[in-house]
Amino acid sequence: MNSTAGRPLRVLVWGENRHEQAEPHVAEIYPDGMHNAIKEGIEENLGERVSVTTALLDDPEHGLTEERLAQTDVLTWWGHAAHAEVSDEVVERVHRHVLAGMGLVVLHSGHWSKIFQKLMGTTCTLRWRSENDRELVWTVDPTHPIAQGVPHPIEIPQQEMYGEQFDIPRPDEIVFISSFSGGEVFRSGITFRRGHGKIFYFSPGDQDFPVYHHKDVRRVIANGVRWAASDRPEREMPVLLRYETGDFFNGHGYEGAMRDRVGN
Amino acid sequence: MNSTAGRPLRVLVWGENRHEQAEPHVAEIYPDGMHNAIKEGIEENLGERVSVTTALLDDPEHGLTEERLAQTDVLTWWGHAAHAEVSDEVVERVHRHVLAGMGLVVLHSGHWSKIFQKLMGTTCTLRWRSENDRELVWTVDPTHPIAQGVPHPIEIPQQEMYGEQFDIPRPDEIVFISSFSGGEVFRSGITFRRGHGKIFYFSPGDQDFPVYHHKDVRRVIANGVRWAASDRPEREMPVLLRYETGDFFNGHGYEGAMRDRVGN
Amino acid sequence: MNSTAGRPLRVLVWGENRHEQAEPHVAEIYPDGMHNAIKEGIEENLGERVSVTTALLDDPEHGLTEERLAQTDVLTWWGHAAHAEVSDEVVERVHRHVLAGMGLVVLHSGHWSKIFQKLMGTTCTLRWRSENDRELVWTVDPTHPIAQGVPHPIEIPQQEMYGEQFDIPRPDEIVFISSFSGGEVFRSGITFRRGHGKIFYFSPGDQDFPVYHHKDVRRVIANGVRWAASDRPEREMPVLLRYETGDFFNGHGYEGAMRDRVGN
Amino acid sequence: MNSTAGRPLRVLVWGENRHEQAEPHVAEIYPDGMHNAIKEGIEENLGERVSVTTALLDDPEHGLTEERLAQTDVLTWWGHAAHAEVSDEVVERVHRHVLAGMGLVVLHSGHWSKIFQKLMGTTCTLRWRSENDRELVWTVDPTHPIAQGVPHPIEIPQQEMYGEQFDIPRPDEIVFISSFSGGEVFRSGITFRRGHGKIFYFSPGDQDFPVYHHKDVRRVIANGVRWAASDRPEREMPVLLRYETGDFFNGHGYEGAMRDRVGN
Repeated sequence: MNSTAGRPLRVLVWGENRHEQAEPHVAEIYPDGMHNAIKEGIEENLGERVSVTTALLDDPEHGLTEERLAQTDVLTWWGHAAHAEVSDEVVERVHRHVLAGMGLVVLHSGHWSKIFQKLMGTTCTLRWRSENDRELVWTVDPTHPIAQGVPHPIEIPQQEMYGEQFDIPRPDEIVFISSFSGGEVFRSGITFRRGHGKIFYFSPGDQDFPVYHHKDVRRVIANGVRWAASDRPEREMPVLLRYETGDFFNGHGYEGAMRDRVGN
Repeated sequence: MNSTAGRPLRVLVWGENRHEQAEPHVAEIYPDGMHNAIKEGIEENLGERVSVTTALLDDPEHGLTEERLAQTDVLTWWGHAAHAEVSDEVVERVHRHVLAGMGLVVLHSGHWSKIFQKLMGTTCTLRWRSENDRELVWTVDPTHPIAQGVPHPIEIPQQEMYGEQFDIPRPDEIVFISSFSGGEVFRSGITFRRGHGKIFYFSPGDQDFPVYHHKDVRRVIANGVRWAASDRPEREMPVLLRYETGDFFNGHGYEGAMRDRVGN
Repeated sequence: MNSTAGRPLRVLVWGENRHEQAEPHVAEIYPDGMHNAIKEGIEENLGERVSVTTALLDDPEHGLTEERLAQTDVLTWWGHAAHAEVSDEVVERVHRHVLAGMGLVVLHSGHWSKIFQKLMGTTCTLRWRSENDRELVWTVDPTHPIAQGVPHPIEIPQQEMYGEQFDIPRPDEIVFISSFSGGEVFRSGITFRRGHGKIFYFSPGDQDFPVYHHKDVRRVIANGVRWAASDRPEREMPVLLRYETGDFFNGHGYEGAMRDRVGN
Repeated sequence: MNSTAGRPLRVLVWGENRHEQAEPHVAEIYPDGMHNAIKEGIEENLGERVSVTTALLDDPEHGLTEERLAQTDVLTWWGHAAHAEVSDEVVERVHRHVLAGMGLVVLHSGHWSKIFQKLMGTTCTLRWRSENDRELVWTVDPTHPIAQGVPHPIEIPQQEMYGEQFDIPRPDEIVFISSFSGGEVFRSGITFRRGHGKIFYFSPGDQDFPVYHHKDVRRVIANGVRWAASDRPEREMPVLLRYETGDFFNGHGYEGAMRDRVGN
């Protein structure tokens, strides 16, 4: 039902790509980088309906130029060790594009990225442990498009634990809630709207475990990508405008806060 | 039911106090400043249950020092012409206190303040017109404590129009929806939780009209102040901690993103 | 993205069809009945993507047999003068189908139908006046698929007034809020999930005014029909089942509340 | 902040009281019945702020006469084996009182009671297992008054498992999410508003385990009772009324659906 009808959805998979370079055990699990595993998972599920490319932290402007974002329907975000290295200017740019209608899928440790924190307005903190917990991902919203085509629950044999309290605004929708063998729970699949943009956060996925090779995890990410694509035809920021009485359609630009605007 | 049981709620009314200085017609309506009208309205309704003070933009550190905020249960915020003059450092400080549990009541044009934008993560834009519209404030959540003691609707003879679309996250609760004589509608009384803090936004109120002298508007603001006071006994930020398996109560501080933390 | 991919969505437009028979001024506006105007509006917007039929109160079993409902993806409901004549048995049947995944679009005075009340659990009362108010329908959720393709606001020159308080559960989503020339406001486009079913309530539409001939109203109803279609492949009721430890996928039927079930 | 200021909150603890009679192992855990354990837990936490009485299924009219309900601020409900024995007339009566403003706290297997199903409009089914699981009750809404004064998580050594999917409308608030040693999760503390009434559902509590003797469970129930008490001064049902243009405060009774009301 979205606005791309007739052409493939343009998906940009953003990856930090540091663990894969610095830690051999990660490189072994993800020889082409996590970003390529994520890309493959989306293509595996959506085929010709998507056109997926990747961008990395170490690319110029992190691969997230104005031109690139303008050509992106949905951006996926994976970062962890180097959140602080993402430039504030690029974060502002991505923020503007989300508010203007670009979809955003934030993955796993991306919960602590600058862009997610900026969109949420909270600390986005949680409790965690990386000790080979088993994660079970339970669907609590069976009507949601993101929950289609996966078992209830999804079983992930080895995972980092993310537990409540997850310091986020109340989600628009809670699609999945996870439990971990240690007993913790987590709102692991949640949606938000911000401006004209749709955001899906999905916590399963870690550098130390082969989670992005998991069939069901890949299906959820692909579902999330489709869901996050805007139904609106244009990319535009919300604006503050003055409307005269009886004219609902022609807003004026804002001209300052004081009444006697010309004089002041 | 909140944590201040036994002592008055400490309320800090923050005012920009510029229109009152620069515009004679505003000074006439609010000879003691809007901040004092707001203060009186809270005292009028809550009496000995509150201890209300004021702080102004032109005070040192805008009157919002660490010490002052630590002694504040609920902060109310009115700003308009000088949002840009509020220092980023103070905004960060207020943000931390809200996430740690300080209540926040944002009034009228405070929708476009730095602190509200930072907490919302959106542009907080809307449509507006200052032309003597009549505003009707309808209660849509009759069970909400903030809606108690006011007529349905509240009638405000003269008001600036604020209309949808209001670019905010989906509110936790919509208490009031307003209509204006020009035909516009607005979600005029809405709540949010962020971190450990509770936030109430209430749009009626303007420098050009005597809205802060309106009995029902004053009652709503007082109700909002009571509601925003935290039920938690302590002021503390959410934190990210590691918890070992089986130990649910003793978290460790975070020590970095890479696995071999000491070695790296 | 829904489960009907490859075949048209089967839409059943249900109409009470009494005003059209009893009141000449209604028959003049809707010579083929309101149900046919609604049907045409859906076809006008969705074309070959839908197959639309109608059923009427005076049909045997109100045209809502088990077989008919089983072949229906989305049911639209218009009733007013004869809510009480709808048999409880048929209401139970429609309720089961909604919980099992059939979409439901409830129109205008359908807010007081047995089926809507049963799904909501509340009185579904409101304030009203039929006096030629102008209604403005404002989009408050610009990302919602139901809000696509219509102006902001939709202008309806003549309409019955429906005003708050509307006694409904908090909606999952508020897509539209209306104002009326008399000053009232109404949550006029709202969604709910119940069981595996999706429900859209849309208030514009009345027997006394030509609202179902209004281009934008027709577009919203068509959008609502598409949205309400289930993404789940099967029609099935939620069930209560016992699951043994470690077996997440094979539930047993419930065998009674007392522990010694065989003995009792 | 509620309307009972100055007098104790009148709480009525309703119990089915069948397991205690029929099953010796239950009578051993709850020698005075579960209803009295629940009553004691509320009194233990709220002391003189409450006046608690009990009513049982086998009382005349189940102890829920019009007079009794009119004198009740908050009703708590525990039923399991005999949901079907609760008369429809009494269910209607309780339903009316909830919509008119009586608070309702539904406990554990009360999820499948007639009154809860009627208020929810769904099947209220779930997955379950009674096998000595450990339950951990995690707070996900740290600002909520119901979550105050209990550890995060609450540990319940032995409990029946209740797991998702829980077929309920999207809750207004999710206060607690539980995990079970078997790996299941459950939205175990949730709130709803219906009409003028506030409803809290809390799942911990079972006839086979001493859960209602658990200090933290008792605290949550007491918190829930306080929260569910109405802030509105009067007990009144929402009604459908006609309001003339410009008169916002004097509604007329409804006089029938057809236009020419007198003539018809």
